[in-house]
Amino acid sequence: MMLTNKQIKLINSLHSKKGRSENELFLVEGEKGIQEVMDSDFKVEFLVVNVEYQHLFSNTSIPIYFVPKEDITKLSTLTINQFGLAVVQSKSALKFNTLDDIVLVLDGVRDPGNLGTIIRICDWYGVKQIVCSNDCTEFYNPKVISATMGSFKRVDCIYVDLLEFFRSHPNHEVIAADLSGENLHHFHFPNKAFIVMGSESHGIRPEISASIQQRITIPRFGEAESLNVAISTGIILDQLRRI
Amino acid sequence: MMLTNKQIKLINSLHSKKGRSENELFLVEGEKGIQEVMDSDFKVEFLVVNVEYQHLFSNTSIPIYFVPKEDITKLSTLTINQFGLAVVQSKSALKFNTLDDIVLVLDGVRDPGNLGTIIRICDWYGVKQIVCSNDCTEFYNPKVISATMGSFKRVDCIYVDLLEFFRSHPNHEVIAADLSGENLHHFHFPNKAFIVMGSESHGIRPEISASIQQRITIPRFGEAESLNVAISTGIILDQLRRI
Repeated sequence: MMLTNKQIKLINSLHSKKGRSENELFLVEGEKGIQEVMDSDFKVEFLVVNVEYQHLFSNTSIPIYFVPKEDITKLSTLTINQFGLAVVQSKSALKFNTLDDIVLVLDGVRDPGNLGTIIRICDWYGVKQIVCSNDCTEFYNPKVISATMGSFKRVDCIYVDLLEFFRSHPNHEVIAADLSGENLHHFHFPNKAFIVMGSESHGIRPEISASIQQRITIPRFGEAESLNVAISTGIILDQLRRI
Repeated sequence: MMLTNKQIKLINSLHSKKGRSENELFLVEGEKGIQEVMDSDFKVEFLVVNVEYQHLFSNTSIPIYFVPKEDITKLSTLTINQFGLAVVQSKSALKFNTLDDIVLVLDGVRDPGNLGTIIRICDWYGVKQIVCSNDCTEFYNPKVISATMGSFKRVDCIYVDLLEFFRSHPNHEVIAADLSGENLHHFHFPNKAFIVMGSESHGIRPEISASIQQRITIPRFGEAESLNVAISTGIILDQLRRI
């Protein structure tokens, strides 16, 4: 099958947030992501794959367009993608069915690579729900999806007003990572917790501060001023899972 | 003072590895990095700073060129840098004076963002020496320097043949992060250790495997296949510093 001009235009439109939102579609790029999304409850509209990998796709009902490697690079948002991409239906509303006991909360995380990496970390540690403030980067951004390495299909993200969210779920303790809190190494997490991580540059917003019930700190043994938010998330979730 | 065409050409040449190596200079970009490098034993040749920040630089003997914001963006390798950049002498040979008891070892880490983040993590945990295999990304790459958030001045990196390096330092135990090793949460590090992290895509090279004396694994509680190498490094160094 030949890719039509209309389809090429559609793919290019999905590079932008506006196009993703108007078409209710997003891109999954690279081999790992494509494998994962084909084996998920996301609906894949069609695939565009480097013709050199044709042999990997004998048995699927999804429409596949095989094209030269150069075309993949042109259509892709990633310079390193030489495998292919999937055009996938986004879920109409990002929501949780029921609220888990342990939920990660992100306050103003803007970098797509960080959000994607955090989703992957949550998937490693079995945390399945992330609550994002409305100004966090978009879940369906191709850089987010790509950095999750396929974990985007196992971790749910919702976008909310954090203050309102905390107020309407008073049984969860609000615990925030901070530079002057209790030593993480001696901290025992309660059964129901919102674990709040602040943004890369500004930490946790003052408006949120009043809602915080506990502050925890990763102990420092050297001189760096801070840790990247994804690194901090990894270290904190590792503590969460210790007995 | 006006920036000369020769200086502009020099700065542009420092975007590439070849230019950095020929001129024995590298770039430090952004406010945090510039502050840190001015207060270090690196020799700063000159600074190019957004004229809007002129008031921050009253008292220094380093030549400074104040230019419009647009020129900073043009000269910079980072699209987000609107502050300025420093042209800095690289150290003629990257080397350790004496070998520390705890040393991080990287086998084939190619992504500059990962190396920079790992340097920042080492600085947080007080690990001051990193040994890189010769095919790791270059320490002076602007993306590495920028991701360290200033920590590049407190952590030394050397580039070596790893097998030879392990052989010539037999008193350090070689401990590698792996997907099938001892549970990190119950692991006690020896006094003298090389902690080896593998590359993003291939893990630790088979040639290195025979040198490994202990393998450790970050326990998994969910379904992600792996963690990013910088995240793993953070979690492992956090364990190292627990009593």
